[in-house]
Amino acid sequence: MPPPSPALFFDTVNSYQRTEALRAAIELDLFTQVAAGKTTAEQLGEACQSSPRGVRILADYLTIMGFLRKDGREYHLTPDAEAFLDRRSPAFLGGALEFLLADDLRQSFRRLTGAVRRGGTPDEGTVSHDNPIWVAFARAMAPLMHMPARLLADLIGGDVQQPLRVLDVAAGHGLFGIAVAERYPQARVTALDWPNVLAVAAENAKRAGVGDRHALLPGSAFDTDWGGPYDVVLLTNFFHHFDVPTCKQIAAKAHSALAPGGRAVTLEFIPEPDRVTPPSTAGFALVMLATTARGDAYTFAEYRDIFASSGFRRSEFHALPPTTQQAVVSYKD
Amino acid sequence: MPPPSPALFFDTVNSYQRTEALRAAIELDLFTQVAAGKTTAEQLGEACQSSPRGVRILADYLTIMGFLRKDGREYHLTPDAEAFLDRRSPAFLGGALEFLLADDLRQSFRRLTGAVRRGGTPDEGTVSHDNPIWVAFARAMAPLMHMPARLLADLIGGDVQQPLRVLDVAAGHGLFGIAVAERYPQARVTALDWPNVLAVAAENAKRAGVGDRHALLPGSAFDTDWGGPYDVVLLTNFFHHFDVPTCKQIAAKAHSALAPGGRAVTLEFIPEPDRVTPPSTAGFALVMLATTARGDAYTFAEYRDIFASSGFRRSEFHALPPTTQQAVVSYKD
Repeated sequence: MPPPSPALFFDTVNSYQRTEALRAAIELDLFTQVAAGKTTAEQLGEACQSSPRGVRILADYLTIMGFLRKDGREYHLTPDAEAFLDRRSPAFLGGALEFLLADDLRQSFRRLTGAVRRGGTPDEGTVSHDNPIWVAFARAMAPLMHMPARLLADLIGGDVQQPLRVLDVAAGHGLFGIAVAERYPQARVTALDWPNVLAVAAENAKRAGVGDRHALLPGSAFDTDWGGPYDVVLLTNFFHHFDVPTCKQIAAKAHSALAPGGRAVTLEFIPEPDRVTPPSTAGFALVMLATTARGDAYTFAEYRDIFASSGFRRSEFHALPPTTQQAVVSYKD
Repeated sequence: MPPPSPALFFDTVNSYQRTEALRAAIELDLFTQVAAGKTTAEQLGEACQSSPRGVRILADYLTIMGFLRKDGREYHLTPDAEAFLDRRSPAFLGGALEFLLADDLRQSFRRLTGAVRRGGTPDEGTVSHDNPIWVAFARAMAPLMHMPARLLADLIGGDVQQPLRVLDVAAGHGLFGIAVAERYPQARVTALDWPNVLAVAAENAKRAGVGDRHALLPGSAFDTDWGGPYDVVLLTNFFHHFDVPTCKQIAAKAHSALAPGGRAVTLEFIPEPDRVTPPSTAGFALVMLATTARGDAYTFAEYRDIFASSGFRRSEFHALPPTTQQAVVSYKD
């Protein structure tokens, strides 16, 4: 056994520096310039309107973090950076910083000690009525959702020509419902969310060419009549904001809105029963502690119970590699 | 080769959450309570005046980060946490957050993009005249310095009864000079720093029982006459704040102040020539980019050149495991 080392303490205390380094690199569009063939600190300094010295220190740090590879004096993108950080890549994720590093979220973490004391935020947190953060979310996070949305659409199965009726609860950017509409040309999707958020979903549906099969149901998921019946109810990144009794209300509402043979399809951060693996999935619980009154990252056993107690016959777990999220498909009967 | 994954992007963007989680745990004294035998979320909630739910989510996150080990519903300290995060441990590091997470430092990183553009801070940064951050530094960082100070004293060598004359430049908490005074009972140490900082060093020298062999030389290392001659000049965590020409001025001043046979002993973050390994050492350059006008983490080749050009005959490199720092011993002749 090696002697104890203060390295982990220092790395962790200074972790906020990683956040800022990645943010600075994205703001300077450094990854895009590396992809465009500017590989030395001098070339990058000119391309990013920065000092070569500043770029060299930042690029070394990005190399340490795994976004760049350094070969002599030249920097190259790692495969992850190439896929997600070059602004010209269709999977560019840089815009997500608008949401992921919104001042409100950061401030919530500055108050984390209080959240641990209370077990959550003192108010409703981010799920308060018509919170404008969800418009920022819908705009900023859409590019991250194409891959999970396609993976989730894969779970529906059956003939692509079936006339699916789909309800997309708390639709946000709308991409989950839109991915189903793209996969199933006869599908009709109803997107439920606050009106200001739905405007973003409607834009995205139009851009994807499925606007004529994408209806809007404005309001709170709790107060609005969901209509129906539906063949599929999508519950994506919604449950984690609430406590178990509230999750059961949501599941019961899904059960009532589903036609015979219907399914609820849930996308979530679902850790193993130990709640500490997989790390990136399990760690999400802390975001819910910091930003909601009673939200959590529930295990599959908990979701199975939530759906079973609401009348669903059975639930299946699906990992969705390479994403850090998982899915549950719950069958009405 | 695995397909590209957005996991590193998410982990890095959210890294600031690690900082806050560790800070919250230290503020709540959670590690001390685990060490005292409170091992479940319920017991810890009571001991830390916190919600069991809040503690459970925080402790799971600390487990993911490697500070706790989870065994069923019980949490235990990892060896690192036991050594450095239990408030009753002599090596407790929690107090260092006062410096490491000082608002000024955090704010510097919020402005990192500008620092990359300019190649440093727009002003002198943290090395401005009499900057009060160095008093906070001297108070908060002392507990982290006992181990490197002892390792540095090991490098001096020779008979412990020799009457060493030691100059401790930019002494801060004074622990490096004090460790030499403890090791060499005939040593006399002169500590040079701003007057408000020297007050902390003098306290520490008195507490260590070496106050009668610990003199104070108040002022700027640049403007003050260093006196001498000395057998040893200690240059600990000082060079990294400055550019190479300034480092050469400092080395030249050390050379002049040394007696024949004397040595300069430098403690620094000294990366390999690639400037990206070892990670925790090399990553320190970013702190200098964010908080100083022209500071850096210099390689051993650069230090060798700095000392050689100031008349030193030769310099030796020393790793100081398990710390993330390294040392250079430079011989006057």
